[in-house]
Amino acid sequence: MTEINSNWNPAQRVLMGPGPSNVHPRVLQGMAQWTIGHLDPQFLALMDETMGLMRTVFQTQNPLTFPVSGTGSAGMETTFVNLLEPGDRVVVGVNGVFGERMCDVASRCGAEVRRVEAPWGRIVDPEAMAQAIREVKPTLVAIVHAETSTGVLQPLQVIQEATHEAGALLLVDCVTSLGGVDLRVDEWKIDVAYSGTQKCLSCPPGLAPVTFGERALERFDRRTSKPQSWYLDIGMIRRYWSGERLYHHTAPINAIYGLREALRLIVEEGLENRIARHTRNAAALRAGVEAMGLQLFAQADARLPSLTTVCVPEGCDEAALRSTLLNEFDLEIGGGLGPVKGKVWRVGLMGDTSTPRNVFYFLSCLERILRRQGVMVENGLAAAQEALGD
Amino acid sequence: MTEINSNWNPAQRVLMGPGPSNVHPRVLQGMAQWTIGHLDPQFLALMDETMGLMRTVFQTQNPLTFPVSGTGSAGMETTFVNLLEPGDRVVVGVNGVFGERMCDVASRCGAEVRRVEAPWGRIVDPEAMAQAIREVKPTLVAIVHAETSTGVLQPLQVIQEATHEAGALLLVDCVTSLGGVDLRVDEWKIDVAYSGTQKCLSCPPGLAPVTFGERALERFDRRTSKPQSWYLDIGMIRRYWSGERLYHHTAPINAIYGLREALRLIVEEGLENRIARHTRNAAALRAGVEAMGLQLFAQADARLPSLTTVCVPEGCDEAALRSTLLNEFDLEIGGGLGPVKGKVWRVGLMGDTSTPRNVFYFLSCLERILRRQGVMVENGLAAAQEALGD
Repeated sequence: MTEINSNWNPAQRVLMGPGPSNVHPRVLQGMAQWTIGHLDPQFLALMDETMGLMRTVFQTQNPLTFPVSGTGSAGMETTFVNLLEPGDRVVVGVNGVFGERMCDVASRCGAEVRRVEAPWGRIVDPEAMAQAIREVKPTLVAIVHAETSTGVLQPLQVIQEATHEAGALLLVDCVTSLGGVDLRVDEWKIDVAYSGTQKCLSCPPGLAPVTFGERALERFDRRTSKPQSWYLDIGMIRRYWSGERLYHHTAPINAIYGLREALRLIVEEGLENRIARHTRNAAALRAGVEAMGLQLFAQADARLPSLTTVCVPEGCDEAALRSTLLNEFDLEIGGGLGPVKGKVWRVGLMGDTSTPRNVFYFLSCLERILRRQGVMVENGLAAAQEALGD
Repeated sequence: MTEINSNWNPAQRVLMGPGPSNVHPRVLQGMAQWTIGHLDPQFLALMDETMGLMRTVFQTQNPLTFPVSGTGSAGMETTFVNLLEPGDRVVVGVNGVFGERMCDVASRCGAEVRRVEAPWGRIVDPEAMAQAIREVKPTLVAIVHAETSTGVLQPLQVIQEATHEAGALLLVDCVTSLGGVDLRVDEWKIDVAYSGTQKCLSCPPGLAPVTFGERALERFDRRTSKPQSWYLDIGMIRRYWSGERLYHHTAPINAIYGLREALRLIVEEGLENRIARHTRNAAALRAGVEAMGLQLFAQADARLPSLTTVCVPEGCDEAALRSTLLNEFDLEIGGGLGPVKGKVWRVGLMGDTSTPRNVFYFLSCLERILRRQGVMVENGLAAAQEALGD
């Protein structure tokens, strides 16, 4: 057996990767409160409160808005397994890891998947999506709002219109947008959406907020087969997360304590203020990076406020740089995945992590290490400060 | 939106239901430590340590022993979706809710399920299981070691032998036994097992410890189709929980901090001591209950040390009694499910909850409320104390 360290004392990392983001002490302390039962009236009241807070952040009135008992990918799977039956047709936009993952999950549901691809770093062309939807006549259209692998923010309007003209449901991955980037489930006519807690909500990973609209539930109720997952079957889960309170599985009590506290922090800050903060700090980060002479990866008119992708400059040992950032400066950023592995860094400014302090710290550390590696860059701080309005 | 209470201050319930059990402050504080990344070398070391501790508690050398990122039911689903393909034959023992649930999950995998039933409160007859296994020639045999809905402890030896004579895999639900009841995965030749954290491990709910033996992994590697769940696919998950560290989904970091601390507490106490403690306190509880003149529900030679089922006496309003226990005495016990709803109470003595203090408190409160309801019972404390060896 591995030797047991007597104390767990993790380094106080600055979490500027693609998630998890830094967690507010109130959330950590919230999770550490006394565990009570999943059918305790006190807990049932907390569930209602948490659902109400989630609706505020999703900007929806959907009654079935609850946290799936798993991480963001369990949220993805929840939406697909409940809305697809074998033989159903799906159109999926693919411009990164999470569009790929949606195709894989939909295929495992027995669906016929039509992929609409775009190069990594570009949005999925809305007209190409609309065209595919008209051709395929799917029951479900799936698109990633905020691609965590590329830092691209996807426009949804044209896709939404084409989806509903075809009588299909619109499913949106908002793992890296919920709580930090403008997202309006009801106004934008999104039928079903899922997210994760460890991005702009600044909660530890472990829960997946989802919301199902009326049309999605109608589709669910017309199923002729059970969803292939018992654990994620909303037919049973909604009986626990509603007035009926019928036991399905034991809810992750303390994780929900933490989510509730994280959502309260968002409501206290104000969702609009929070989104504006994410926008402002991301602009400063980009200005600083570009002033250093580095290139941004995502297309200029579709950059995510929550995650910035930076091209690795020539002559830089990118893995060594990330390692130095982590070990010497306690600063975590992400590397690239798949086709952009070794070519980009992913720099998150999500939730509590989105502060000018972290922007300045990252730019300072990045400059220092690049220079050490012999990569000549300019200083980016003045440009970042200017972007903040100084 | 629901009104937001400014502080979350749950009552300090004594958790004597069927789980969650009471959580040690060190576990709660463990969960509240600074969140770091799921690929941070510090976290990777913690994962290894947690796996080692889990092997100790499962009494196994299986390399693939890890916590599924979901509650116990996700553990159940993980074992079935990875080991079954459509058309496979399965034999399942059914003598309570969790045997039923296994049938449902296996059916959703497209398997042909042969049920071997027993009345609630009785063990599944090992000979009947063996007979069914010889007839059906299944690829998988599934049985619940500790039935949380009835308080029955299932003997496994005969079933194990019949399973392996037939060349099948043995799958065991040990949600309510792991860490509190004798369970020897390797010695008893269990091929795959799952549990939950909120029972005898005394951790908040949210993770499902699982262990896959060599023969189970061989079966997995011979699959001709992908598992129907992406989220629970051990083909990908094992690449993250091994030296490769390939990203699959973001691990529930802080929940794993908590699990590691709970497992450390078990190793500090000593697994044998802990099991003996569960046995001793359960004996005291049963002695007290019987001395009061009440009946136990589970068959006399197969009673779980972690969960005792008590028959509701005539003249008692059982729901009112549980409600009074909770609201007046901060003491949670469970009601019956399905066919024994209203007929039994489920009284857990799991993990940190398993103490003489809780036994005495429960017996005292139960006597008091029953007398108030006009149900005449004896005092059970002396018998309980005697059973403890006083």
